[in-house]
Amino acid sequence: MSGSRRSFSSDNVAPVAPEVMAALARVNHGTCHSYGDDPETRRLTELAREVFETELVIHPLATGTAANALALSSVVPPFGAVLCHELAHINTDECGAPEFFSGGAKLMTLAGVDGKIRAAQLAAPVAHARDMGIHHVVPAAISVSQATEWGTVYRREELAALAAAAHEHGLLVHMDGARFANAVAHLGCTPAEASWKCGVDVLSFGATKNGALAAEAAIFFRPELAREFELRRKRAGHLWSKQRYLSAQLNACFEGGLWLRHARHANALATRLSQGLERHGIRRVQAVEANEVFAEFPAPLIARLRSQEFEFYEWPAPPGVQLPVVRLVTAYDMAAADVDEFIAAIAAHAAS
Amino acid sequence: MSGSRRSFSSDNVAPVAPEVMAALARVNHGTCHSYGDDPETRRLTELAREVFETELVIHPLATGTAANALALSSVVPPFGAVLCHELAHINTDECGAPEFFSGGAKLMTLAGVDGKIRAAQLAAPVAHARDMGIHHVVPAAISVSQATEWGTVYRREELAALAAAAHEHGLLVHMDGARFANAVAHLGCTPAEASWKCGVDVLSFGATKNGALAAEAAIFFRPELAREFELRRKRAGHLWSKQRYLSAQLNACFEGGLWLRHARHANALATRLSQGLERHGIRRVQAVEANEVFAEFPAPLIARLRSQEFEFYEWPAPPGVQLPVVRLVTAYDMAAADVDEFIAAIAAHAAS
Amino acid sequence: MSGSRRSFSSDNVAPVAPEVMAALARVNHGTCHSYGDDPETRRLTELAREVFETELVIHPLATGTAANALALSSVVPPFGAVLCHELAHINTDECGAPEFFSGGAKLMTLAGVDGKIRAAQLAAPVAHARDMGIHHVVPAAISVSQATEWGTVYRREELAALAAAAHEHGLLVHMDGARFANAVAHLGCTPAEASWKCGVDVLSFGATKNGALAAEAAIFFRPELAREFELRRKRAGHLWSKQRYLSAQLNACFEGGLWLRHARHANALATRLSQGLERHGIRRVQAVEANEVFAEFPAPLIARLRSQEFEFYEWPAPPGVQLPVVRLVTAYDMAAADVDEFIAAIAAHAAS
Amino acid sequence: MSGSRRSFSSDNVAPVAPEVMAALARVNHGTCHSYGDDPETRRLTELAREVFETELVIHPLATGTAANALALSSVVPPFGAVLCHELAHINTDECGAPEFFSGGAKLMTLAGVDGKIRAAQLAAPVAHARDMGIHHVVPAAISVSQATEWGTVYRREELAALAAAAHEHGLLVHMDGARFANAVAHLGCTPAEASWKCGVDVLSFGATKNGALAAEAAIFFRPELAREFELRRKRAGHLWSKQRYLSAQLNACFEGGLWLRHARHANALATRLSQGLERHGIRRVQAVEANEVFAEFPAPLIARLRSQEFEFYEWPAPPGVQLPVVRLVTAYDMAAADVDEFIAAIAAHAAS
Repeated sequence: MSGSRRSFSSDNVAPVAPEVMAALARVNHGTCHSYGDDPETRRLTELAREVFETELVIHPLATGTAANALALSSVVPPFGAVLCHELAHINTDECGAPEFFSGGAKLMTLAGVDGKIRAAQLAAPVAHARDMGIHHVVPAAISVSQATEWGTVYRREELAALAAAAHEHGLLVHMDGARFANAVAHLGCTPAEASWKCGVDVLSFGATKNGALAAEAAIFFRPELAREFELRRKRAGHLWSKQRYLSAQLNACFEGGLWLRHARHANALATRLSQGLERHGIRRVQAVEANEVFAEFPAPLIARLRSQEFEFYEWPAPPGVQLPVVRLVTAYDMAAADVDEFIAAIAAHAAS
Repeated sequence: MSGSRRSFSSDNVAPVAPEVMAALARVNHGTCHSYGDDPETRRLTELAREVFETELVIHPLATGTAANALALSSVVPPFGAVLCHELAHINTDECGAPEFFSGGAKLMTLAGVDGKIRAAQLAAPVAHARDMGIHHVVPAAISVSQATEWGTVYRREELAALAAAAHEHGLLVHMDGARFANAVAHLGCTPAEASWKCGVDVLSFGATKNGALAAEAAIFFRPELAREFELRRKRAGHLWSKQRYLSAQLNACFEGGLWLRHARHANALATRLSQGLERHGIRRVQAVEANEVFAEFPAPLIARLRSQEFEFYEWPAPPGVQLPVVRLVTAYDMAAADVDEFIAAIAAHAAS
Repeated sequence: MSGSRRSFSSDNVAPVAPEVMAALARVNHGTCHSYGDDPETRRLTELAREVFETELVIHPLATGTAANALALSSVVPPFGAVLCHELAHINTDECGAPEFFSGGAKLMTLAGVDGKIRAAQLAAPVAHARDMGIHHVVPAAISVSQATEWGTVYRREELAALAAAAHEHGLLVHMDGARFANAVAHLGCTPAEASWKCGVDVLSFGATKNGALAAEAAIFFRPELAREFELRRKRAGHLWSKQRYLSAQLNACFEGGLWLRHARHANALATRLSQGLERHGIRRVQAVEANEVFAEFPAPLIARLRSQEFEFYEWPAPPGVQLPVVRLVTAYDMAAADVDEFIAAIAAHAAS
Repeated sequence: MSGSRRSFSSDNVAPVAPEVMAALARVNHGTCHSYGDDPETRRLTELAREVFETELVIHPLATGTAANALALSSVVPPFGAVLCHELAHINTDECGAPEFFSGGAKLMTLAGVDGKIRAAQLAAPVAHARDMGIHHVVPAAISVSQATEWGTVYRREELAALAAAAHEHGLLVHMDGARFANAVAHLGCTPAEASWKCGVDVLSFGATKNGALAAEAAIFFRPELAREFELRRKRAGHLWSKQRYLSAQLNACFEGGLWLRHARHANALATRLSQGLERHGIRRVQAVEANEVFAEFPAPLIARLRSQEFEFYEWPAPPGVQLPVVRLVTAYDMAAADVDEFIAAIAAHAAS
């Protein structure tokens, strides 16, 4: 077996980008005040304000679940509810973290074939909750994943309409941006246009899947929402004593636009992969807009590829799809040749 | 000002040890299964079993608060209580993390002039709680800090007696080992003798203060106590996707006994510092047994040293002490010359 | 306006049955040990064992939400999940009580046009959760409402199949029996046959809607599940000091089968009501099996009835129903004449 | 044995006052809107405003633990702290209810030989917490028990000084008034003077120990603090559907000053009891100011009295007291003859 990269399981199987490793090495000298009172953390705030072109509060964190759950607990009371897609990571992949951090708030889930929720879906559950008064949890926020769990990307007008509807209903807007970079790369707009200019109030910004070691951030575009954050972070055990090593990772991503270069690269490979699959008659089950491809694979093909040490997950099939669905994730560290080798393996299988 | 290391604030102001940085670089190649299904994490379990000479379950974590709170939530129910020293880090420095992670359990605090709790202190509160029946939280565990927040170290017979009393009362024994290395170095015994052989059931093992970037561990000497740990860790946002970088730090500390070399070095410097203070008539308020010195400093001396950019914290004075108390912490990265320079500054002040 | 009873809003608008009031008066003499160490509470256990023909643990409570949430928190861990109908009272009417009491567990909801969930619906979500491992909350129990929120009643074989499937999947079975009496009355079987003999592990038994002042109970058919209950009840503020007045209400309901007489009466009135509606061409949207009628009412009829001080709630219409849906609830204290008067008002409207 | 009342265990062993039973019977007719939308609940607000001579928000509850925990959760965040006496009921007798309801807040306890905390005790812990910043829970409120767990009563100037100090430190003032009636009766002032005029922000008002069946109330003197209360009450399962029966109990207590007549009676009997003990050389360990007497009883006397079916609890002795300490509680339903009979039994023992 060659040294090719055969894992399409997730973007989190990738190593750390050299620029991030270099940043860790660069800050690793001398003593430094702990708990965020350090130059790298101050630099992080500066950089984030430049990147997002606005005042904001940013707090670095080691995991995406922490970023989501802490951000949500800042905007929803224990007797509140967050409206989100039924497949949202916060609903299916975080072992109840939002409920834990919020003290028991509820996720009210909405359907949507492409992983998106729509502005028009908010009115009914909100009205029902209001009608029920104190008997019902109180809708307090929506959470949108951008890119979505289906690898699709909200267009800016979709997002703006959704956020506007949320705000009209008195709901705050949280964005799970574990793959925010990929979404921005797809949209071809500025980070500001992809977030607060569309109405996002608080953003979980992901870097781990995009080249960092373990670095995400909670970004508050309305600083008053961040008031309790530092206390909540501390009591959740998410405040690092040596925070410079957390902030430095994010700085390395922001500096010179590394994060967007990485994302564009991964997105381009996903497109290449999707096109390769198409040439062999393999159907996508979702539009490929970020760095994920969801496609229908015959079971024998899956077995054959796995026997060749290709790695990927099967995914619950959407309604109406008969064949198994696989998820293929590209990443910043993957080469075009890796994609081509995967396609070649499919071609070989088809020929056999 | 020379390049000397002038911060005695905490051992967490130190940089990352070169061995740890090298380990991060060494594992940084190729893809790797995420969430702990990786060779470094498997190696961590092996190494820990060698170091502690027993079967155990070990889970790496980024912070000490996470290690403490997750470990405690594994051994105390929401309606339970943990008995600990009133100055325990879990009681005063973790913003309510134990209460949060356990779902509302209570810390029942005990006094002790040297930072230690004693076996004889357990019977009364346990008996009272039992008498009160369902009206009172149920004592479920004790938590001991080793070394203590006063820089003292439980002798093995003290610890064994305390743990035996706890077990007799039906309480599990948790050790907050943020400075466990320093305690073992002081005791001159094996890690096993300092932990499970004395009756410790679960240990929060600290490495961040001792040369790691951000690495601690929850170590269960009774594996059945770890049953829920992985679920609790995930929903607390403390499971790293790229866990190899967390485990690798701990492996680097364990390999070749680096952690104990670091601790012995820091302890020796604390002793050197304490002796230097003694020569200038400055009184310790606690025995110096690990890497911390607590001493009475006249206010003008404090001001003078701070004007020279020495850094340290004032500490709440124990009963009967009139002068301000300062805490001086040594660390693995500090040199004898750094200590000597500090003592020289004191000498200069005394002479002026 | 006559003295007729014009509220069909809920069975909880009814007064307290004379037999219950008499029981309160009867026990109201002399001093009595508090917190459940009293003859009425001991009698309650005896009576419940007779009624359910088995060993069991019963704890009286003042509200149904308390009974449900405390019972559920006894069978689901904080990182667990309860599968239930999407319209279950615990999901829509208890302001997040299950999440609160369990420390953040999740309700995973299932659809079902008649308010029931089916055995076949369990496999997929349980398998998905298991596949997701520690990333997903752990299904720990199902909760079924009997009678359901749509006024339907699980047949015994339906319930047995559902419970068997749950047990096969390792899930415990909770029954929200706010209207358990009405269900038993409809089924015409014994309370045992309607509960533990079908596989119910823990039952929230309702009496408030059926003639009590404020009295429900958590009944554990597997006593080992009740181990933590008394501690959880106390810390939730649900332990009464003068518990005799709580137990006495339940005893009055059980004695001589009052609870079933009440339920049969209410059920019969619901049938009478439903038949009356049918005579005037008003369509039921659900089978009438307990003491609730859900029917399609033209808006003008609703307005007319309300102008005559009849009271009832509009209800979210099930899919495919165009007219407004109203819920009409009968109760133990209602007379056939009350129903007839309501039907007469409809007749008068139709004639006008 | 005569029909005399021999239990001095607690005021909660008493039956329900006839006036309260009559009120329950009086409201028990016809249907009534549920969940507090009823005349009795509206009357309760009116009466409480008259009694306390101010605007206020009052919510009835069935237990004192619920009143305390819900009130506290309205004034302290999950990362907050409540300062209270170490023997406060909320700290020792509620099985962690405040921690549970608040989502993990902490009780920071203060000593005080007479069960009271003093204004001067607040500054140090508050300053320490502030110094520790985000590492420490945030003091948000104090809680005072009036009367205290030692049967003493804060004088108005003590309370005013304490509340003023709390407010200066930014802390809200909660009063656990399980025996507020006894305190007011002792002070001889108006309820307003004993509460909000001294700076109390929220009061847990007790009636169960004073003649009700199960009725307490959370009273907010600053209505803006009550904003979340109804949601918190519902999700805690403490909202009664048939709330008229809860409110009616409190109304019966307030009407015509029944609550204060009851309290004065109980207080007078405690004084009579204390004087009787004094005549036989039995020492009080606390001033007798409400309806509780704490006194040193020789073990043989305890045994003799218990053999005669007198009931009372032994209590943890305060420092310096060698003999066992017993708590004797008088109540509204007790007669002077009951006290005299108890004293006579002591006399008989002394003579033997």
